[in-house]
Amino acid sequence: MDVFPQSHGHTLVIPKHSRARNLLEEEPQVLSALILGVQRVARAVRAALNPDGLMISQFNGAASGQTVFHLHVHIIPRWEGVPLGRHAGGGMADLDELKALADQIASKIS
Amino acid sequence: MDVFPQSHGHTLVIPKHSRARNLLEEEPQVLSALILGVQRVARAVRAALNPDGLMISQFNGAASGQTVFHLHVHIIPRWEGVPLGRHAGGGMADLDELKALADQIASKIS
Repeated sequence: MDVFPQSHGHTLVIPKHSRARNLLEEEPQVLSALILGVQRVARAVRAALNPDGLMISQFNGAASGQTVFHLHVHIIPRWEGVPLGRHAGGGMADLDELKALADQIASKIS
Repeated sequence: MDVFPQSHGHTLVIPKHSRARNLLEEEPQVLSALILGVQRVARAVRAALNPDGLMISQFNGAASGQTVFHLHVHIIPRWEGVPLGRHAGGGMADLDELKALADQIASKIS
């Protein structure tokens, strides 16, 4: 989970064994596996939270919004009428709440 | 190229043989090939336009910002100090200009 969530359920997918700073640098086989992981987690987020939509984003370089310089993908649930928060704009999330959300999403991973 | 660009060089990657409306529905092998195509085109955009950063995004459902309902990925170059435009916020781009940009990027695809 992103500790500075832009929406309820803002989730990150991070390749475990990667030294790439961003998508441009990543090895093809890691990238192919990563996108399948994104699909899997995105489906679990949808099953757990039932959002109206899901935004998927990935940033390359500080000018694009990247703040943590290893490759990661954002899965951001969206609801009708709820504007997207700015990253860290709402401050840090409650960690117990994030843990509960993570458990809820993980239970839906198939 | 996106005809309603959010920045100079806003490029789309679209799987040719796909009926998926979004990432959640896509076949694993199409998705794996797609992300490698995104990397290839993103590198070409960088080589052609030399932006300070690159944002990659993909929308699932109208509530997330999706307006065209087949799977596609946005590659949006970013420059320091230049805010991100709203989709269609700046109106439709000049088609000759887009064609020239597309040629410039295509010439860098390796």
